[in-house]
Amino acid sequence: MRPKVKIPGNGNPNAGPEFAPVTLQWLTGGMSGPPVQESAKKLADLKGIFFDRAALALLDPDKEIYRVRWWAPVSPGDEGGLFWGVTILQPGKVGDEYFMTHGHFHANRTRAEFYTPVRGKGLLLRMDEQRRTWGEEMAPGTLHAISGRHAHRVVNVGDEPLIFWACWGSDAGYDYAVIRERGFGARVVEHNGRPALVPSE
Amino acid sequence: MRPKVKIPGNGNPNAGPEFAPVTLQWLTGGMSGPPVQESAKKLADLKGIFFDRAALALLDPDKEIYRVRWWAPVSPGDEGGLFWGVTILQPGKVGDEYFMTHGHFHANRTRAEFYTPVRGKGLLLRMDEQRRTWGEEMAPGTLHAISGRHAHRVVNVGDEPLIFWACWGSDAGYDYAVIRERGFGARVVEHNGRPALVPSE
Repeated sequence: MRPKVKIPGNGNPNAGPEFAPVTLQWLTGGMSGPPVQESAKKLADLKGIFFDRAALALLDPDKEIYRVRWWAPVSPGDEGGLFWGVTILQPGKVGDEYFMTHGHFHANRTRAEFYTPVRGKGLLLRMDEQRRTWGEEMAPGTLHAISGRHAHRVVNVGDEPLIFWACWGSDAGYDYAVIRERGFGARVVEHNGRPALVPSE
Repeated sequence: MRPKVKIPGNGNPNAGPEFAPVTLQWLTGGMSGPPVQESAKKLADLKGIFFDRAALALLDPDKEIYRVRWWAPVSPGDEGGLFWGVTILQPGKVGDEYFMTHGHFHANRTRAEFYTPVRGKGLLLRMDEQRRTWGEEMAPGTLHAISGRHAHRVVNVGDEPLIFWACWGSDAGYDYAVIRERGFGARVVEHNGRPALVPSE
């Protein structure tokens, strides 16, 4: 027999700050534990990204469009770290344009990201630096590798919340300016009852 | 009405190589799609990591201990990319020591990794550069942020396969040498019917 026996557990002083326990509820987008952060975007926060201003004016500006939960075990900007999070994007439209996330490039274009949905039906919009824009279908179980060279936005084209998990670099950063000023090169609208990409410029 | 309508789909020529479709089966560890790679470790591949050589000699060297599936959308070593994968670690013991993965440091110590199990019961062993070693309980839904400064190994302490997903940097790399030569600072053994950490040196 070996002399010393130590029961493993959470009390180990060597554990360091990354030891903080976080638990996921895969299928519902739940994340719990002390370090989990959360923020929500309401329609009023996103009004600049939708095309139909008249339709927008008729909707409740306090309506929640999406909610993000995430764990940042290191500080934003730290080299080589990873963040983990989930987005819950509500179904709905502004005029004929589906609810969507703001979207961004990574400030560091070398930094990639993964998305993977567990519920709902979506479209991952990608746009390269030449503003070429294309869509990739999202459904439970699809896995999306997003190059840091591509702006990315998620559109809910279904009738239930779209829930997708993400993992990305702590040093990826966010570059919102291009999207805020010019949007993506295409919009996703309902056309004959189905989602369609229409060029926006 | 807008003039041009394009149905989004997988045929877009702008999509690039990272567009290859991969689908996950969360709870079973399934990954399907052309770019998915797979490899398995048998007991014979891992014989150096277990303590009890006499017990090892009585077991089938062809027994599969774990299997890894992963998607590498960029090349290993590419800066800032991400890989996504799953490990299925079988239950069992060599003597009183539970089946486990080989474990490694990242060659680039700044590069982090996430693990999150969906089935089974495990222990994530971490070891710092001073060989201090500690365990963190793994169960369905727990999320583990692994610093690149810590070697990491997973131990199956349950009686069913332990299935966990992982996301890590394409430029993390692998440093197996320390583990191959000296192992971790502690082993996980069954003691009075329960897992326990015992110092290995």
